[in-house]
Amino acid sequence: MWFYAAQLNPTIADLSKNREKIVTAIERAKKEGADLIIFPELALTGYPPQDLLFMPHFLDAVEKEAKKIEAATGVITALVGMPRRHGKKLYNSCVIYQNGKELKCYDKRLLPNDDVFSEKRYFEPGNCEVIFEIQGKRVAVLICEDIWGEGPNDPVASLHGKGVDLLLVLNASPYYLGKSDLREEVVKRVAKQLGCQVFTCNQVGANDQLIFDGYSVLIDKNGEIALRLKGFAEEERLIDDSKPESLKIREGVEENFEALKLGLFDYCQKLGFKKVLLGLSGGIDSAVVAAIATAALGKENVLGVLMPSRYSSEDSIEDAALLAKNLGIETLNLPIEEMHKSALQTLEVPFEGLNQDITEENIQSRIRGLLLMALSNKFGRLLLNTGNKSEMALGYCTLYGDMCGALSLIGDLPKGAVYDLANWINRDQELIPKRSISKEPTAELRPDQKDVDTLPPYSIVDQVVIGYIEDHLSPEEIAKRGNIELSLVKELIRLIHLNEYKRRQAPPILKVSHKTFSAGRHYPIVERWTIPK
Amino acid sequence: MWFYAAQLNPTIADLSKNREKIVTAIERAKKEGADLIIFPELALTGYPPQDLLFMPHFLDAVEKEAKKIEAATGVITALVGMPRRHGKKLYNSCVIYQNGKELKCYDKRLLPNDDVFSEKRYFEPGNCEVIFEIQGKRVAVLICEDIWGEGPNDPVASLHGKGVDLLLVLNASPYYLGKSDLREEVVKRVAKQLGCQVFTCNQVGANDQLIFDGYSVLIDKNGEIALRLKGFAEEERLIDDSKPESLKIREGVEENFEALKLGLFDYCQKLGFKKVLLGLSGGIDSAVVAAIATAALGKENVLGVLMPSRYSSEDSIEDAALLAKNLGIETLNLPIEEMHKSALQTLEVPFEGLNQDITEENIQSRIRGLLLMALSNKFGRLLLNTGNKSEMALGYCTLYGDMCGALSLIGDLPKGAVYDLANWINRDQELIPKRSISKEPTAELRPDQKDVDTLPPYSIVDQVVIGYIEDHLSPEEIAKRGNIELSLVKELIRLIHLNEYKRRQAPPILKVSHKTFSAGRHYPIVERWTIPK
Repeated sequence: MWFYAAQLNPTIADLSKNREKIVTAIERAKKEGADLIIFPELALTGYPPQDLLFMPHFLDAVEKEAKKIEAATGVITALVGMPRRHGKKLYNSCVIYQNGKELKCYDKRLLPNDDVFSEKRYFEPGNCEVIFEIQGKRVAVLICEDIWGEGPNDPVASLHGKGVDLLLVLNASPYYLGKSDLREEVVKRVAKQLGCQVFTCNQVGANDQLIFDGYSVLIDKNGEIALRLKGFAEEERLIDDSKPESLKIREGVEENFEALKLGLFDYCQKLGFKKVLLGLSGGIDSAVVAAIATAALGKENVLGVLMPSRYSSEDSIEDAALLAKNLGIETLNLPIEEMHKSALQTLEVPFEGLNQDITEENIQSRIRGLLLMALSNKFGRLLLNTGNKSEMALGYCTLYGDMCGALSLIGDLPKGAVYDLANWINRDQELIPKRSISKEPTAELRPDQKDVDTLPPYSIVDQVVIGYIEDHLSPEEIAKRGNIELSLVKELIRLIHLNEYKRRQAPPILKVSHKTFSAGRHYPIVERWTIPK
Repeated sequence: MWFYAAQLNPTIADLSKNREKIVTAIERAKKEGADLIIFPELALTGYPPQDLLFMPHFLDAVEKEAKKIEAATGVITALVGMPRRHGKKLYNSCVIYQNGKELKCYDKRLLPNDDVFSEKRYFEPGNCEVIFEIQGKRVAVLICEDIWGEGPNDPVASLHGKGVDLLLVLNASPYYLGKSDLREEVVKRVAKQLGCQVFTCNQVGANDQLIFDGYSVLIDKNGEIALRLKGFAEEERLIDDSKPESLKIREGVEENFEALKLGLFDYCQKLGFKKVLLGLSGGIDSAVVAAIATAALGKENVLGVLMPSRYSSEDSIEDAALLAKNLGIETLNLPIEEMHKSALQTLEVPFEGLNQDITEENIQSRIRGLLLMALSNKFGRLLLNTGNKSEMALGYCTLYGDMCGALSLIGDLPKGAVYDLANWINRDQELIPKRSISKEPTAELRPDQKDVDTLPPYSIVDQVVIGYIEDHLSPEEIAKRGNIELSLVKELIRLIHLNEYKRRQAPPILKVSHKTFSAGRHYPIVERWTIPK
């Protein structure tokens, strides 16, 4: 039995286009002589369709497109992921078409409801396995979370002793660093457990904050990898189990780069934007974002805007210009001095006799936000946010200022990971000016300002951010792991909670870690959590 | 048997203060001779604690405070809502203390997971009823959603024939207009079904977007109302079932006013803010917000900022000033002409030869946002957003401009409901200038601009917004119900989806309808849903 895998990149709710992709893949599979074709989880709607699933007329439209797929299958057996109504209930299903008819349906049994998942909001769990025969082989079907199960309701366990030759799994498994390894380990365990071949067909492409990495895999019955499809790209191919082969998964930092590139590309392309812009400060964050954008969209589509102020150093202006030159992107130079002066003048009366404080720093940041948004509006360019996870955690950023943007590229990377990415980007040639990497981080919003005037060194900040946000550690555990003073850990955690209000209005952040601000992390703004002494 | 009800307003995660409130109420109940005291659902943490529930050291702290409550109970029986760990599982529980010891625990069986609820993210469902005897009466306990059940797992049905004399229900039921009536209907049905008295103890107060209205009720075994506690205020009292009495629920528009007042008051008070500010345009939206803020916080704590531009009419400036005079609030006058000019001048080169468009309108709105945020930063005043639901739906608002603010007061009210509120506010005297109500809505961002130049009349917009967002109707149903052209309905729905990106960065909106942007509504930004022809 030969089967064909379609690792597709659907667009959320673009039903006719997604259906077209599915039908085209079916035609190709038939031409290549496949007996069966498998698609990712919810391939027809894209994953996750969210509250669109509550709209009856959306589900009507899904059913119409499903009928067209059914009609197109012909002799091939097709496994298509889609939402399926049954009475008043909705299921996350794999519809199995054969000879132009619906043969069976498999309904996902384990519905993830943590982190970025909220499937229990929409779906009822299925309650039985599906096994069918094709060319003398017994084929079972599961969907994504089903293979991560444990305990008495484990869908994998229910397949035990049922003589399954091949387990096919429809996936929509979002990327974070290390996720594909983790996923493969689970598939290997399942293959060994059942003593059969397992193939997982994963969605690829980005939808809002979620990036799906692809990397569909075939694991043999000994739990060895037999074949791995591409990462971060669509791929369709006949899975001929006689030819073991394997693409290497990249190193972590490169994986993140590819993920962010795809995340940005799809965000623009699926919304119909070709061009982007961003502010270039001469610092490392905007440099890394510019480099990713250039790689994703082409240098002709990226505009870097320099907005020097009275506090900008010559070095910063030079570094920003040099970066743009190295990347080959267009620049604009819009000094903010005049607007800065007129803002202070407008506020002269109410501010009379008061000391300068953070207010005056935020004004500069917000003038830059205003100018960037004006350029975005006038030229139809999408504005990229350039903030990192460490400053987003501690609120070392200005709401409606440097927090502006349609999409945050590095908002899930702590400062240290931004340095790693910068060094990786420079691996062959100096794209990001050395000085942007080596100089001390500064916001340049007052004379001779350095980030360390306000924050502890990023090496400490990052450990607290990673420990508290990503690893759910207690302050004591973070202090111990990082050899940091406990009182400092607690103070940083206090800042993390205090700044929830800023993050509530932050741009969507591309997810590359296992816990991301703005995706799958829900904290109250109004709360008084203080860590007990 | 006499029992005591504590309709409390807890602050999320303010564990020691919430525990103090609980213990104080227990002391009062004992003094009044009560045998039993009941608190709302999750009274110890406040509802909803969200992802704080994932932190083991938060749950440790909850358990410490619970021990203190246990020690304080003494002779009284206390029903306290709190999260409860059992092994690796977490339950939404009512712990029943008696004689200073834990007598029993009831674990909520039906976990709501729709709209603003995501209890399946955190909790395991309980699986058995709890009935105990006190003073010869058989008392059963349920929690909130448990009484809304249907079907085979209905917790109410499980109490059938068990000889229950009194059913006590711990609630944290968020407000929307009409919700308290709906809730009482359910309680009445349950009382008749079981043939026993039912008392629901509801949380009161606001946490982020959710406003809890209180209105705890005692329903007799015939399904008649015996007693209703206050709406939108804390109340503690001995429930003496020999004295039937009932506070009247207010009319809808007054209910909304009270809800918004409490929502704002708690947002400020729980965060530690006393003072607020807002921009006054002379229009109806900012007038209504100013009136609510004045009622909630006192006129001495509200600052109205006039920011006239070259396009502001004399009328608007006069109306804004008159409103401030009527309310007795302070004002500031900050003309934006200088900043407007300097912004256009800064952008002169890149914009050379291009026509004016929405960009120039947004610039003015963003200058105002910048000034308001500068005042907010300098004076520690919380900025109130003044946008309504209709403009938020269609994106007739400027991101980082008039969309600035820590909290949106009327972002869940369609324009028509804002008029209703304005007229209600003026019921005894003209607080809001008549002309702000009677004149045609205008953004005044270009000469002689009117909202109807861009949008259909609000009477039509509102029907589509309510039909599509709140009532989940199809375009055809909306067109039919409102006698609106179908193509116009579809165009407005297209705009609603298109502007999801703006709403993703909007301030939190106080919830007063059953479907609110930014609370319990999850739509993708990147999608291509188009209603089939």
